[in-house]
Amino acid sequence: MKFALSHIPDIRFGADEIDNLGSHARRLGGARRAAIVMDSFLAGNGLGARLQDMLAAEGMTSEVYSDFAGEPKLRHLREAAAVARDADLVIGIGGGSALDIAKILACTAASGEDAMHYALAANPLPANALKKIMIPTTAGTGSETSATNIFAGPEGKKLWIWGAESKADLVILDPALTVSLPANLTAWCGMDAFVHAFEASTNRNAHPAGKLFGHQAMRLIAANLPEAVRNPSDLEARGRVLLGSCYAGIAIDNCGTAIAHTISHAMAGLAPVHHGLATALGFEISLPWLAEADTGDLAEAASVLGLPGAAGLAAFVTRLMDACGIARALPAGFGPFTADDLAREMRAPENQPMRRSTAREATDADLDTFARAIMTMQKEG
Amino acid sequence: MKFALSHIPDIRFGADEIDNLGSHARRLGGARRAAIVMDSFLAGNGLGARLQDMLAAEGMTSEVYSDFAGEPKLRHLREAAAVARDADLVIGIGGGSALDIAKILACTAASGEDAMHYALAANPLPANALKKIMIPTTAGTGSETSATNIFAGPEGKKLWIWGAESKADLVILDPALTVSLPANLTAWCGMDAFVHAFEASTNRNAHPAGKLFGHQAMRLIAANLPEAVRNPSDLEARGRVLLGSCYAGIAIDNCGTAIAHTISHAMAGLAPVHHGLATALGFEISLPWLAEADTGDLAEAASVLGLPGAAGLAAFVTRLMDACGIARALPAGFGPFTADDLAREMRAPENQPMRRSTAREATDADLDTFARAIMTMQKEG
Repeated sequence: MKFALSHIPDIRFGADEIDNLGSHARRLGGARRAAIVMDSFLAGNGLGARLQDMLAAEGMTSEVYSDFAGEPKLRHLREAAAVARDADLVIGIGGGSALDIAKILACTAASGEDAMHYALAANPLPANALKKIMIPTTAGTGSETSATNIFAGPEGKKLWIWGAESKADLVILDPALTVSLPANLTAWCGMDAFVHAFEASTNRNAHPAGKLFGHQAMRLIAANLPEAVRNPSDLEARGRVLLGSCYAGIAIDNCGTAIAHTISHAMAGLAPVHHGLATALGFEISLPWLAEADTGDLAEAASVLGLPGAAGLAAFVTRLMDACGIARALPAGFGPFTADDLAREMRAPENQPMRRSTAREATDADLDTFARAIMTMQKEG
Repeated sequence: MKFALSHIPDIRFGADEIDNLGSHARRLGGARRAAIVMDSFLAGNGLGARLQDMLAAEGMTSEVYSDFAGEPKLRHLREAAAVARDADLVIGIGGGSALDIAKILACTAASGEDAMHYALAANPLPANALKKIMIPTTAGTGSETSATNIFAGPEGKKLWIWGAESKADLVILDPALTVSLPANLTAWCGMDAFVHAFEASTNRNAHPAGKLFGHQAMRLIAANLPEAVRNPSDLEARGRVLLGSCYAGIAIDNCGTAIAHTISHAMAGLAPVHHGLATALGFEISLPWLAEADTGDLAEAASVLGLPGAAGLAAFVTRLMDACGIARALPAGFGPFTADDLAREMRAPENQPMRRSTAREATDADLDTFARAIMTMQKEG
């Protein structure tokens, strides 16, 4: 046994914990000016002004950047950098996009370099990144505890910036911030987190410390996601899913993902689709195949879910997705594409690391089978 | 549900991971000169020179301080500070004493203040503490992941320095470094870690994130400590106990201890006794009383150990201590003292926080009962 566990930030959990943002920001030390990156939906809600008031009460000035939607683009990173001039603290609040923009910003603001300077590990991140507080509101990506940050480059190509320097110093998990998330997004984001936990716990890079978080995330999400979807204001269920998503972020930060993410990223390469939905669909159609590998890690994951063995995993996940009301359907944008198109995307170089880390070898024929299963799904519109 | 999880350092686990100390030190950034605090036993073994060679290969100079034994005294902290002049990295390697000295040193070296400046939270620790690598070799105190540091003040009084600033940046868990620990120390230190995990998971401050670590620590230690005692060179068993001890350190860093530590610290106030032995003895005699409280946390701890309920805990722990060959006997130094003397120590102000955090209210009559049970044990010599 040999493994590395990457550092885990301070975590504060509780309904309305956001009300303590001011004192948390002050305790992080020396901050005078904060850059807040937040979803425009939240900013429009008055939350931006509220956070600025809290910071002002601690003697800090702040600026809000919320002029983005969907996955982060290079343009957003540059606009955020302009807002962050002179900031010594970055606060990210929202879904994975807001958090990824904020984490990258904390690095580029420290060095003055453009985001492209760091894309695909072209250069190491600066050691003196600004302090970062991350506040997830969607319970899905786990970006608040990971070192990975995704954005679309100049030609729309998916790029990443990776490094421990981009990780949060403090994570605030406030379930009250998640109650307004619509049912379908709650389900999709929650399943994304479940798949993070499952894949990190069962792929070839799985290790005991990663599984400690991955297993607990699977328990928390499987036991509480259906209730969070059915009863959006159930703070207990919301909180457990939020904590599970955070633990799942720790799991993938250490052990990464696998085949469901190869499929999911390939789908995103064809047409716009919510990452959580694509991941859930890719997970469900590949799991019967994966479970046949029947490794010790798969058996352990099954046991964590109360199942006698890996053979029960696929039915369990199908029941979970049913209980969360997830329609097995593709967005209309997939209309023009064939299974061959999707299989080609699955074979793209950038999707091979996840394919290779899968516990079972995925042959080209396997990918063709997965692609057919996805593309024969009903299409919307 | 509301809780705080304090940050967790980078952790590298593996037999002979110590061989990578040089590259770890380099990666921590900017270090040119390291102060190494290590047990004299290890320094005498040639390990000190080996570590210095590794650092030299990375262009770093270093000094070793190992002139201490037993619990750290103020004098040791001052001697270490003299050695650390101009250091920008502190490496602690050994038992809890070496790690506590190293962690305090990283703070005093940064500010130039004496350790007494920070004792009992007289002043906040400096925000710019030196980088710290902690390498435990006894699998017991969990100091490598905690913010608590213990030493004896000018009049021999037990003092503490507490603060997140004193926490490690990197922990190296190398089971190969623990194989030379004698059987009785392996058992005592391992039981200390087990009690950390149990008390953190069941006291009034227990919370879900702390229990994630406490429960896993209980599983790892209960399942592997007897084998580590019986077969000292079993690296698998040693490794699982070492990881369990590290997780137990995370658990107490967040949730603290309880009545067994009130008893253990009181015993140390009377006569010299190994902390792990005193804690194990105090735990075993108070557990039947504690288990009667039958709280949800106690039931959960029992379930983690494969027991149907809290009523089975006491017998389980007695079997575990038997399997580890722990003699229920006091050092000869306890000869002159009575149960009343011990009960008075238990009521000392510094031992009340642990008493109060216990899941069941410990009355003065309860303390008298515990004191009698301890003092009627066989005395050595």
